[in-house]
Amino acid sequence: MFLRNCWYVAAWSHEVGQEPLGRTLLNEPVVLYRTEDGDPVALEDRCCHRGLPLSLGTVEGRRLRCAYHGLLFDRDGACAEVPGQSRMPPGSAVRSYPLVERAGWVWIWMGEEAPDESLLPDWWWMDHPDWKTVPGNNGKPLHSRCSHRLIVDNLLDLSHLTFVHTDTIGNDEITRFPCRTEREARLVRMERLMPAVEPPPFYKAAGGFAGKVDRWQIVEAILPCYVDVDVGCTEVGRGALDGDRVQGTAFHVPNCPTPETGRTTHHFYAHTRLFRTDSAEMDEVFRTDFLRVFHEDLEIMEAQQRVFDSRPDAPLVDINVDAPALTFKRMHEDALEAETGARTAA
Amino acid sequence: MFLRNCWYVAAWSHEVGQEPLGRTLLNEPVVLYRTEDGDPVALEDRCCHRGLPLSLGTVEGRRLRCAYHGLLFDRDGACAEVPGQSRMPPGSAVRSYPLVERAGWVWIWMGEEAPDESLLPDWWWMDHPDWKTVPGNNGKPLHSRCSHRLIVDNLLDLSHLTFVHTDTIGNDEITRFPCRTEREARLVRMERLMPAVEPPPFYKAAGGFAGKVDRWQIVEAILPCYVDVDVGCTEVGRGALDGDRVQGTAFHVPNCPTPETGRTTHHFYAHTRLFRTDSAEMDEVFRTDFLRVFHEDLEIMEAQQRVFDSRPDAPLVDINVDAPALTFKRMHEDALEAETGARTAA
Amino acid sequence: MFLRNCWYVAAWSHEVGQEPLGRTLLNEPVVLYRTEDGDPVALEDRCCHRGLPLSLGTVEGRRLRCAYHGLLFDRDGACAEVPGQSRMPPGSAVRSYPLVERAGWVWIWMGEEAPDESLLPDWWWMDHPDWKTVPGNNGKPLHSRCSHRLIVDNLLDLSHLTFVHTDTIGNDEITRFPCRTEREARLVRMERLMPAVEPPPFYKAAGGFAGKVDRWQIVEAILPCYVDVDVGCTEVGRGALDGDRVQGTAFHVPNCPTPETGRTTHHFYAHTRLFRTDSAEMDEVFRTDFLRVFHEDLEIMEAQQRVFDSRPDAPLVDINVDAPALTFKRMHEDALEAETGARTAA
Repeated sequence: MFLRNCWYVAAWSHEVGQEPLGRTLLNEPVVLYRTEDGDPVALEDRCCHRGLPLSLGTVEGRRLRCAYHGLLFDRDGACAEVPGQSRMPPGSAVRSYPLVERAGWVWIWMGEEAPDESLLPDWWWMDHPDWKTVPGNNGKPLHSRCSHRLIVDNLLDLSHLTFVHTDTIGNDEITRFPCRTEREARLVRMERLMPAVEPPPFYKAAGGFAGKVDRWQIVEAILPCYVDVDVGCTEVGRGALDGDRVQGTAFHVPNCPTPETGRTTHHFYAHTRLFRTDSAEMDEVFRTDFLRVFHEDLEIMEAQQRVFDSRPDAPLVDINVDAPALTFKRMHEDALEAETGARTAA
Repeated sequence: MFLRNCWYVAAWSHEVGQEPLGRTLLNEPVVLYRTEDGDPVALEDRCCHRGLPLSLGTVEGRRLRCAYHGLLFDRDGACAEVPGQSRMPPGSAVRSYPLVERAGWVWIWMGEEAPDESLLPDWWWMDHPDWKTVPGNNGKPLHSRCSHRLIVDNLLDLSHLTFVHTDTIGNDEITRFPCRTEREARLVRMERLMPAVEPPPFYKAAGGFAGKVDRWQIVEAILPCYVDVDVGCTEVGRGALDGDRVQGTAFHVPNCPTPETGRTTHHFYAHTRLFRTDSAEMDEVFRTDFLRVFHEDLEIMEAQQRVFDSRPDAPLVDINVDAPALTFKRMHEDALEAETGARTAA
Repeated sequence: MFLRNCWYVAAWSHEVGQEPLGRTLLNEPVVLYRTEDGDPVALEDRCCHRGLPLSLGTVEGRRLRCAYHGLLFDRDGACAEVPGQSRMPPGSAVRSYPLVERAGWVWIWMGEEAPDESLLPDWWWMDHPDWKTVPGNNGKPLHSRCSHRLIVDNLLDLSHLTFVHTDTIGNDEITRFPCRTEREARLVRMERLMPAVEPPPFYKAAGGFAGKVDRWQIVEAILPCYVDVDVGCTEVGRGALDGDRVQGTAFHVPNCPTPETGRTTHHFYAHTRLFRTDSAEMDEVFRTDFLRVFHEDLEIMEAQQRVFDSRPDAPLVDINVDAPALTFKRMHEDALEAETGARTAA
């Protein structure tokens, strides 16, 4: 049901500290904490003895102690102490998960194969000094009562801006332009180039544009579910649509919607911009106005999920703008089949 | 599970306007709106493209536009516009339902056969100028967490007035008198005539009766679940029990409990009286005191539903006053079997 | 799933009065009331006619009248009156359950065999004048969203005091001492004797101990799920650990966790002490501080239940302190198998 041999964002780095954090990821209960040395640790959030979530316990140095009978677990999940006895019983361990910390996020590997850091997305600008990153939803995952697949679909089809986000980043111009779909090994790219169009309200204000603009929307979805949205406007004729997008109101919205369950998601996202990087006012626009934008999408996607829950087999019709999302859907299904097949054969 | 080739009340007329109204009827999501010409429209409340409830969308003239990708639907359910493309994809339509507007209610036909207006109940007094109608529950359906079948049962056995509605319309007299059951093609009639009895509190006050009264209860249940309650009192010996019921405190309570699901119901009802039709005070009694009466029943029926949900197969015992309800139950089951059989054979 | 041929606490005596009390026990709806003679009665909480909970009805002398159509039930469950008819229909009765009132509690027998009072626990001190009983949770069952089996496990392993109740009755001394397990016909005894140890905060304050104490924990679990906790401290060397426990801060905590469902429990318990029996201040300590202790356990056990619900088959590891609980678990399983086998053979 989920791709497992890949990384998922488990938490913002600042969420993981000396207080254990319990979070369900891919239907599995996980506890995250940071050792006294500052290393993040992820264990199965279920004591091997009587099942209590270890997230109710206490960090002691590099270890985590269960709140019920006091079993003490090492960062590799092995039980290091059972109060009242000197020998550890056979099997007294919980699962431990590999972690990587990058770009403000703690990434977890929940698959059976060896973790592979080359599968992390190369979103170098997230912590590059020339760019400014504003965390989404005030630095917490946006809890979404919908499948992470619906979030990927939403991000791969920005024609919805015209109807869902009219006050901010949408207007009638978008659907006049077709989108192009490109496919790589683990990536699908949606590209929509809009020469000489009216800028929607947010861009007009942010860029101070007097007239028409050249506008771009380039969305890259990477397996399992990373989606970078690369968007912006410049004055007409500055070459942005030929590839020089390091200008104007250029910004990225990196998204990692991590499945909590098949029907709920921890949506991690941020905004990383190249313009007015010192402006506290612009920070606030991303913090506040774009949170509203994400909530506009959330209302839509949660309504979709309720419909699909009640009528899972009802047929759907595809339209032109679905091409990128359909391409990624097939890629995801192929990858899932390959992974499941390998698991079955093993 | 539900009779489908018949009309159900979908909404009060005043509920249907330019703001789309989403409502689940017979387990199906339906959106209701009124065109700029004033015609009510009912469509499947689920966009054929990505499933979003169309009730989140916007009315444009005679059409309804989806809030996600902007597909525009005609009142017959056909898709008239897909933003970003000129050709409509095959199958781009949602189901449309026939509607009739009558007596303050919008009636919907959800079956596969052609709609048949002769199946509407003939409750002519609901909008006759000599009568005065006060909508039940302030003009909104009373949402009931119980099957519509329990509501029909409740209305077909008014012996419960003695135990449930003692403060208003019940007293000990009722169960002294047997009820008579009559059966027609699609109708079951319960009749209880009570000569020279004490009037219960509501009738005493409303009719200003000094002593005993002749009282009647005549309930007609019509397939699928329409129930008219025709009740009243007169001074003794005025011929009311011989059929002349256009006098005294005569009033009707027309009921249309429309299934939302098998376990929840939109209960539409009203009070239509022939006495003191100009009295605002009497309007208020129906609006307020009778709402309490309906809530007394609701508490009972919702408790029943919880019991049936937890023990669906527990046996029940029938008593004499159940005769009308049992007759109607058999009629309903026969009709359901006939309809399902016809559907299977087709 | 539940042992049935045994007594369960259904209510505190003071909970059962002229107002019918509806309560689900062992997955069955039960209504409890007290007749005008003061006798407690327990009936199936579901009218045999149309299923309404009889707990919505009214006590009339020794009988209970249904709130819907007025059927009147005797204390043996037989229907004594059906309004509107003189003959009782066949089968018009609800189940009646044997009750015994003892030690402030009303005990119910829900099995098919004849009730056997010898199976009640002999907790004579609960209403003995030399002892003082303070009801748990202010005289109401503590509603617990966990299996009653988890509560029994919790009480049979008091090593958890060290980790869960540090502020009151736990400290590091406990897990230094092993526990002994004894088994009788329907009883498992856990015994932990702790000579010359530091008293935890509650004992220190309650007993006014200056230095070390002799401390004991003796827990007796009796089928189906009665658990008496016999604990206390004395000054060192007074013979308490040789059996003379009628001294010091001796008290019992009798527990009867009655299953509501397989996953929820009505936890009845009390505190019965032999020291400072006249002290209102000490009453208040038990009423307030010990309620907090029970809530500390409740938080743990409800978290366990949620884990077991989501992963019922995940393996568990046993440790030394589990011996008494595992012994009782096997005894309970054997009894369940014997009872079910007898039922199947019958």
